[in-house]
Amino acid sequence: MAWTLHADQVPDLARGAAVLGTGGGGDPHIGALLASQALTEHGTVEVVGIDEVPSDARVVMVAMMGAPTVMVEKLPSLDEVVTTVRALEPFLDGPVTHIACAEVGGVNSTIPVVAAAALGLPLVDGDAMGRAFPELQMVLPTLAGVAASPMAFADDKGNTGVLTTIDNAWAERIARVACVEMGCSVMVALFPQAGAQLSQTMVAGSLSKAAAIGRTIAAARDANEDPVARAVDQLAGRELFAGKVVDIERATTTGFARGRARIEGELGGMELSFQNEHLLAQADGVVLATTPDLIIVLEHDSGEPITTEGLRYGQRVRVIAAPSDERWHSAEGLALVGPRYFGYDMDAHRFDGAREVA
Amino acid sequence: MAWTLHADQVPDLARGAAVLGTGGGGDPHIGALLASQALTEHGTVEVVGIDEVPSDARVVMVAMMGAPTVMVEKLPSLDEVVTTVRALEPFLDGPVTHIACAEVGGVNSTIPVVAAAALGLPLVDGDAMGRAFPELQMVLPTLAGVAASPMAFADDKGNTGVLTTIDNAWAERIARVACVEMGCSVMVALFPQAGAQLSQTMVAGSLSKAAAIGRTIAAARDANEDPVARAVDQLAGRELFAGKVVDIERATTTGFARGRARIEGELGGMELSFQNEHLLAQADGVVLATTPDLIIVLEHDSGEPITTEGLRYGQRVRVIAAPSDERWHSAEGLALVGPRYFGYDMDAHRFDGAREVA
Repeated sequence: MAWTLHADQVPDLARGAAVLGTGGGGDPHIGALLASQALTEHGTVEVVGIDEVPSDARVVMVAMMGAPTVMVEKLPSLDEVVTTVRALEPFLDGPVTHIACAEVGGVNSTIPVVAAAALGLPLVDGDAMGRAFPELQMVLPTLAGVAASPMAFADDKGNTGVLTTIDNAWAERIARVACVEMGCSVMVALFPQAGAQLSQTMVAGSLSKAAAIGRTIAAARDANEDPVARAVDQLAGRELFAGKVVDIERATTTGFARGRARIEGELGGMELSFQNEHLLAQADGVVLATTPDLIIVLEHDSGEPITTEGLRYGQRVRVIAAPSDERWHSAEGLALVGPRYFGYDMDAHRFDGAREVA
Repeated sequence: MAWTLHADQVPDLARGAAVLGTGGGGDPHIGALLASQALTEHGTVEVVGIDEVPSDARVVMVAMMGAPTVMVEKLPSLDEVVTTVRALEPFLDGPVTHIACAEVGGVNSTIPVVAAAALGLPLVDGDAMGRAFPELQMVLPTLAGVAASPMAFADDKGNTGVLTTIDNAWAERIARVACVEMGCSVMVALFPQAGAQLSQTMVAGSLSKAAAIGRTIAAARDANEDPVARAVDQLAGRELFAGKVVDIERATTTGFARGRARIEGELGGMELSFQNEHLLAQADGVVLATTPDLIIVLEHDSGEPITTEGLRYGQRVRVIAAPSDERWHSAEGLALVGPRYFGYDMDAHRFDGAREVA
């Protein structure tokens, strides 16, 4: 069902999107700022369900590509978003009619809001992952055989490019090195699709879900309830661990924010490994959760999502696991985003509320 | 004056272009192979003087970009050349009408022959440097304020891209990292110009000059004359040194073939420093010649040009200096291609037949 996104709903959307972003997808405060600004300037945005998108619609995903560590220091402008979509249009058989999210994340769910507002286009209530992942080919459309290219990219200086690649891994490779050279953060417009394809290739309703999670956390806080527990319920997830961040190793290499965080709590220690997003949660050598399932870090009391670049020594946090979209657990899905792709020599765990250790 | 390029003229053209290529611009044997094949398949190519190009002509330069060390192992296909030009056309206000050379070089003077033959277009008798240089912004059109972009690039796998950049240094930066990721060698189509601009931005007659130099060397050999001496005359240059290659350091880094070669002769030792092209010639600490003037290495007896990637231990060679196009010695020209740009802490020498040491 279509709904209208107003500026005052943006903080909830950004907060909930950052929860589903599993540490990546950008800082929700920056995301909220950008989207609120665009909505104030251009009016509301219509959010339409996947089943409401006409089958001949020309849908394009818009996202920030780069290391979140850099994104927080380089606010994208409205111009960059518009430039990127416009750069792609000559490669399509007509103007873009709908904007969609590539992933759910604090910035990558709100940049499409900015694009939709600035271009006066409806926004699709869905995304291509049901979470965030670090590389651009890591989307359900790739599993469905949809090409990432033609894809456009643009930086804050005014440089733009359009790629047409033989597969989505090549789109990632070429765009990533360009992104690194252009300052580790670029705007991208990619995965052009017809409306008819969306039901097969997207996660439906993820903007509604993100907004609902964001609202739940805020409402629980207002009602003096436990926001983390409410979020866990809504995610059908499970709290894995609570403790204090005692150690963080972080490096921005080959265009990604990579690292590890160690958390200590009453039950011992836990280690999180990330590449933009959290990919692996282990406690004393026991694997608790792995990609593609969602590993989410929330501030202990407020339930605010903490991104991987926002992790700091001394933070009190709670770590949650939640199931990913089922398609990611197929053999093809795991080849694209499973632990082995990221260099961890283990099979993917499959989230099971009963099995996880508390 | 227009002339017709036949397959049997190609070896002379490639040889002479490799002489003017100052060690870079690609291997003349590969260049000749590619162009002969294209001419055999598609017929002759019309070579037109710069003053014969209509003022509203849409002229595009076509070149191989990458490390020559890699280019020699990856023969570009006719398809790549055509794909690259076609990828650029949607960004122009009509179809390309003329093909031009970005530089003079064994491959980069013959790839445009391939493009002209395959596309059935005339080839401009000129180039944008009067020699070869390693980076794409190092052309006279840059000095004249002409933009390198929109520029297209394509690899042998079928990946293509089009860049629109804020200046020519950014075109180089982004295209270079893409080139490295795509295998260190891509085809590029760039510097779209109107025919009216060419008289200000190009070196006129360089294909005729290359073909003449190539013919001179072959004819001298046939007549048992000294081909090197004849080439020196034709270049209005001077032989700097004769000797044997005794040491070569070479590395392919950041997409370039960089290195140094040491040559020993009766008069002591000489060192050549290169980045794709020869940039500096020194004998026992005395600078004999520097970029932007031409530093050319010819095989001692046959006069065949030796590219930087073709330098081998034990080769007997003769090193020639010749004056560059005068525009390169302007302050702006030296900022773009002078010794300091390449990290050598010295002013450019200006070629002077009388001053050079023999």
